[in-house]
Amino acid sequence: MNVNGTHTRTIWLHPSNPAIVQIIDQRALPHKWVIEDLTCVEEVATAIREMHVRGAGLIGATAGYGMYLATLEAKNESLESLRSAGESLKATRPTAVNLAWAVDRQLAAVSSCSSLEEIRATAKKTAQTIADEDAEACRKIGEHGVELIRKIAEKKPGTPVHVLTHCNAGWLAFVDYGSATAPIYAAHDSGTPVHVWVDETRPRSQGAKLTAWELGQHGVPHTLIADNTGGHLMQHGQVDLVIVGTDRTTRSGDVANKIGTYLKALAAKDNGVPFFVALPSSSFDWKMKDGIKEIPIEERGSEEVKYADGLCDGILREVLVAPSNTPAANYGFDVTPARLISGLITERGICEANEASITALFPDLAG
Amino acid sequence: MNVNGTHTRTIWLHPSNPAIVQIIDQRALPHKWVIEDLTCVEEVATAIREMHVRGAGLIGATAGYGMYLATLEAKNESLESLRSAGESLKATRPTAVNLAWAVDRQLAAVSSCSSLEEIRATAKKTAQTIADEDAEACRKIGEHGVELIRKIAEKKPGTPVHVLTHCNAGWLAFVDYGSATAPIYAAHDSGTPVHVWVDETRPRSQGAKLTAWELGQHGVPHTLIADNTGGHLMQHGQVDLVIVGTDRTTRSGDVANKIGTYLKALAAKDNGVPFFVALPSSSFDWKMKDGIKEIPIEERGSEEVKYADGLCDGILREVLVAPSNTPAANYGFDVTPARLISGLITERGICEANEASITALFPDLAG
Repeated sequence: MNVNGTHTRTIWLHPSNPAIVQIIDQRALPHKWVIEDLTCVEEVATAIREMHVRGAGLIGATAGYGMYLATLEAKNESLESLRSAGESLKATRPTAVNLAWAVDRQLAAVSSCSSLEEIRATAKKTAQTIADEDAEACRKIGEHGVELIRKIAEKKPGTPVHVLTHCNAGWLAFVDYGSATAPIYAAHDSGTPVHVWVDETRPRSQGAKLTAWELGQHGVPHTLIADNTGGHLMQHGQVDLVIVGTDRTTRSGDVANKIGTYLKALAAKDNGVPFFVALPSSSFDWKMKDGIKEIPIEERGSEEVKYADGLCDGILREVLVAPSNTPAANYGFDVTPARLISGLITERGICEANEASITALFPDLAG
Repeated sequence: MNVNGTHTRTIWLHPSNPAIVQIIDQRALPHKWVIEDLTCVEEVATAIREMHVRGAGLIGATAGYGMYLATLEAKNESLESLRSAGESLKATRPTAVNLAWAVDRQLAAVSSCSSLEEIRATAKKTAQTIADEDAEACRKIGEHGVELIRKIAEKKPGTPVHVLTHCNAGWLAFVDYGSATAPIYAAHDSGTPVHVWVDETRPRSQGAKLTAWELGQHGVPHTLIADNTGGHLMQHGQVDLVIVGTDRTTRSGDVANKIGTYLKALAAKDNGVPFFVALPSSSFDWKMKDGIKEIPIEERGSEEVKYADGLCDGILREVLVAPSNTPAANYGFDVTPARLISGLITERGICEANEASITALFPDLAG
């Protein structure tokens, strides 16, 4: 998508040195634009763990490039060091399935290579393919999902379609376009009027910091709201459609996404508002059925809840909101049961959130 | 409740000068303890409008004292200036019904007085009665509500009862005890183990700043969580009971409370968790039936959503979280329909959230 009017991806190889991977350090957004060089697996693991990059697709793409950097560090054609690098990458964050998917895809790709040179070339190509496929899947999600927005627009000509989204399942969470935002960008770019309610998404405020910023950069009308607000808006007919992303979706359609997604799904159900989840097929976990019982939920540090950070007098500062000795719990994700979901928007089209419909769309992957 | 081990109310007359009303400036909590002197109606209106004091009961009590200060400013026994003072107080915040209730009670009390001296004495006595009755109503809410906690405790001996609350319907929102917290304090003080999940309550973070602080001061075990978290906790059996307060409840049991309450009620319903609302009868609006259509919802400034504030290097600072040019909407309250509410805990006992049950408990007030 556009940043200052220039089309930009979220991860790429250094234009003059292909041994360096470049990312946007998203921790500094929206206040500063920082490009970070990643030169080894350890830096990649840190970037994922400490959320310089985040979001299902981008975590996968970054892990793919991380495995490529691991081949540059490897001393011989044994896959031992690559497997070890893969384990260290997988351990950085537990919920997003794209991470393990990208690592395993790299390991499979290089398994038949016979020389270190071939391993490196294959890993480089695979990393770029993962990134390209991610961008292409999101573009197709946009093509399919925009029809939902257009249908609503036809019923209320002259007024924008109000889409609510939670967290950042945007361009910044993938390589390009985003998942939940892809239909929004497609609508906006093709002249269908759309307005986005942006959940701020505490405790890390990815909505306030990232989604509001990227929609603003691309010129999409939007309004920031506290996470508490969506139910009230839906009760008063101010939300036409909810679209969120997912970090892992089971084969039966249960959706793990940023904590608080489940609450919005309940409100959508209670008010008859369609609730869609947008995802590339790399976010399906084909081994899991019961999302609430099976999907591991990341617990993060309590300081993310007790502190807020932002710009003060031109400096990025952290402020303590709660009493210093107050205990806090910080669950990163929740699971929205399939029964609350109107449909899944994938790169192959829209399906229902149930095993029959999902596996019919992805017979080759569902196994 | 206790502050640094000393029993403290939230509003009182200056011990040596009864022409001064003293409050805790709650904007500085939890980081600083600031007592503020209010000496005229205008200062009282500012204190309510700018949330030096907030919370249904305390707004009512403060308005009561404000009307008393208005009688000290009055130049003769005409009620004209008092009516005008009452209008200015009522205009400070639209949602809490206690505000208008306290103003009208003062106007009724002084209406039969024949001298300015009598008006002043009556208004002083009425202000103190409103405060005392508020404290006593909350104490009784605690007596009735604690039985709900004890019944759950009997079923899980040796483990604490987990109560989730939203915003601050605590001691700080009333004159003493609080509404939602009264049963919690009563349980804790009588040896029933209780643990509170405290919603941080964006955008003003009354949970993080006030509820966590007052529970900590009184020694009640608690854990701060982002507002997004309650649904996940309920899905995993970690919430036994939800108790919230209300700023206005209709005669049919629809409950206006801090924005986001409705989302927690939906999650409670979906997971079979009892959801109770605690309120003194002064928070009923006997004229209203349909809460979603009729209760006015306060809209506040967008800067409350875009900024966060807290302690940084020993100084209270404000940080800009979102992009500076991002538009934001800030609705202060939402309405939870009666169908989602397990019961109302009042000073006269617990009733169902429907007109028959409410008016049976308050036949003298329901009209």
